[in-house]
Amino acid sequence: MSRNCLVAQSGGPTVAINSSLAGVISQALKSESINRVYGARNGIQGVLNDHLVVLNDIFAQEENIKALKNTPSMYLGSCRYKLTDYKKDSSDYDKICEILKKYDIGYFFYIGGNDSMDTVAKLSVYVEEKGLDVKVVGIPKTIDNDLYCIDHTPGFGSAAKYIAASVLEMAHDTYIYAIDTVLIVEIMGRNAGWLTAASSLARTSYSQAPHLIYLPEKAFDKTAFVAKVKELLAEKHHVIVAVSEGIKDADGTYISAQGGKADKFGHVMLSGTGKVLESIVAEEIGCKVRSVELNVLQRAASHAASKTDIEESFFLGVNGVMLAMKGRSGVMSTLSRVSDEPYAVEYGEADIENIANYEKKIPEEWINEEGTDVLPAMEQYLRPLILGENEIEYQNGIPQYIFLE
Amino acid sequence: MSRNCLVAQSGGPTVAINSSLAGVISQALKSESINRVYGARNGIQGVLNDHLVVLNDIFAQEENIKALKNTPSMYLGSCRYKLTDYKKDSSDYDKICEILKKYDIGYFFYIGGNDSMDTVAKLSVYVEEKGLDVKVVGIPKTIDNDLYCIDHTPGFGSAAKYIAASVLEMAHDTYIYAIDTVLIVEIMGRNAGWLTAASSLARTSYSQAPHLIYLPEKAFDKTAFVAKVKELLAEKHHVIVAVSEGIKDADGTYISAQGGKADKFGHVMLSGTGKVLESIVAEEIGCKVRSVELNVLQRAASHAASKTDIEESFFLGVNGVMLAMKGRSGVMSTLSRVSDEPYAVEYGEADIENIANYEKKIPEEWINEEGTDVLPAMEQYLRPLILGENEIEYQNGIPQYIFLE
Repeated sequence: MSRNCLVAQSGGPTVAINSSLAGVISQALKSESINRVYGARNGIQGVLNDHLVVLNDIFAQEENIKALKNTPSMYLGSCRYKLTDYKKDSSDYDKICEILKKYDIGYFFYIGGNDSMDTVAKLSVYVEEKGLDVKVVGIPKTIDNDLYCIDHTPGFGSAAKYIAASVLEMAHDTYIYAIDTVLIVEIMGRNAGWLTAASSLARTSYSQAPHLIYLPEKAFDKTAFVAKVKELLAEKHHVIVAVSEGIKDADGTYISAQGGKADKFGHVMLSGTGKVLESIVAEEIGCKVRSVELNVLQRAASHAASKTDIEESFFLGVNGVMLAMKGRSGVMSTLSRVSDEPYAVEYGEADIENIANYEKKIPEEWINEEGTDVLPAMEQYLRPLILGENEIEYQNGIPQYIFLE
Repeated sequence: MSRNCLVAQSGGPTVAINSSLAGVISQALKSESINRVYGARNGIQGVLNDHLVVLNDIFAQEENIKALKNTPSMYLGSCRYKLTDYKKDSSDYDKICEILKKYDIGYFFYIGGNDSMDTVAKLSVYVEEKGLDVKVVGIPKTIDNDLYCIDHTPGFGSAAKYIAASVLEMAHDTYIYAIDTVLIVEIMGRNAGWLTAASSLARTSYSQAPHLIYLPEKAFDKTAFVAKVKELLAEKHHVIVAVSEGIKDADGTYISAQGGKADKFGHVMLSGTGKVLESIVAEEIGCKVRSVELNVLQRAASHAASKTDIEESFFLGVNGVMLAMKGRSGVMSTLSRVSDEPYAVEYGEADIENIANYEKKIPEEWINEEGTDVLPAMEQYLRPLILGENEIEYQNGIPQYIFLE
């Protein structure tokens, strides 16, 4: 007997989360056990608000699946909504169950990061307790690469590729003047430095940029930083620094918190980590210095996505549907690396309890002792993830994406 | 009798200035009147310091010409050096003439913006007065599109394409939450708003972002800005604002100068125009707000270059050599648009005296009365410039560029 399925997206955007959605829809449309494919607008909030859309017709057309694979951010919209413990208050859960029943949902796919996997975990337990036959499966995503039980997260490889390409391009931009110049590049990652580490992939036979890499996994020391920049300037005149937004000093205080206070608007976002480092260089060294914050560009630049990332994200969606078809619930679709050369992955599943609410950080043995660079093992891990260029369609000179109005 | 030629690059980087260099080298290598092709390191400073390199061998290989066409920034390096009036002090000019004689230079090609054209103008007059047979030809470049005597400047189209694609991608990123959100995108252009105007090319059938466009050509009014954002938020919940770094208030004070003063380091760069607008929205409206500064990314992103721009830049270089071969000196290689549909240009020359030290701004009739948007004539002018995607080679997941060590 054929049932309906429901899919939703949650958390912060990546360029690959729609590819996972495309994988879910594509596989669901092929499945004889699934009739209607519903999408909830704005994640779990769309379920709570009974705001569902039918996706069957639009994605019966293969070109729309392809456009969805290549479109950044979330086609269905997102939310930042964490379900409370149902033992304390089950009203949200009851409302969700009501909607699941109303639309005869047999399978619920939730694509998201840490918080979303928390939702999957809680909901899968609740529906089982209530005796509802609904399989709840999580599909991972996050540019931060900080989920456990998966070799790397969908969306990370594309952000890493954009960061590497942009750092290389900014290195070309920096090297042209015969004067001492420092460029600071601020990269996302509040607690885990994976994206900042990916800047190391910008290195070529002729360019060692970034010359310094600062990660949140190691305490940042201002004095050592200034000394290191001075030392490098004496050698090569151009120093490019990649820094995670989330670096902290030895006391655990965010470096970004140390600059913004003086602003007349009292607006802390006014000085990010990059700006603080820029100020330090300007004050303590006095050479030409600039800081660039990659900001949301690094999570939205579908035009520069990694083919490996987009394809893997798609198959994680496909695999999620296959898991549900096999009757699995409370699990996350996952992939593990079976070989580095040639790079190969296998798709599988992981128990959601081991994933939700944990953050995977960079292993200490992949960072140099000074905390100013990553070690070769890091490149071996990262490089395959950025390989391949995703081909996107252009119309009128800009990428052709798909949008749900 | 065959002579040698000299080429140099100057001013700020673009992704197309190496394509013009590739055009010069390619055509020079084909010319029977030219023997050696010299490049000066770091612009006119490389001439003054006798720092020349021979380019014949490396660019005899066609694949290196192709790589050069697609490499951002300046292969030969750059400088910011403005020659003084030789009537006051001719020592620089005499030194340059000495080098030109030493290397038997018959043709000097200088690729650059406003200041570089000033150098071409002065030098062409000086060598003629001294009776030296050296043809001095300028090849234009600037992302700012602010040169006269040319329909648009090389490098502008690629920056415009990157801005349009990035604004569209950030729009997807912004639309996902069902809450009032303002995104401010700060774009380069101190005195002319061409690049900011190019953000209008991000508009599609489903997205009108940027919803507001503020250009330096019109005085910025804070009260009207806040009212406009509030009005739009009431309509659509998501407002994306494109703003030129160079907007000023009615008194002619840069808006960017109004935020940075309070910083504890006294470092004015800490608050750019985007950050000031972000603060205004946070203070006066209080909704979710973010600002993104496209910064050097917009002038360095070769991975997203416009094919039209890269090809035209190449032919401006080729044309520069052809002009010199015809005995022209003190001129700039230029292009004029002969048709919009189909888009077509013709290459020609312009007297350098009409170019140096002037800045072309956006015509008033292309901006709406309120100063919050551009009018349809702007799109007709801009759209052809971003058409076509430049195919670049990738190696190890990052673009493969060429570099002179």
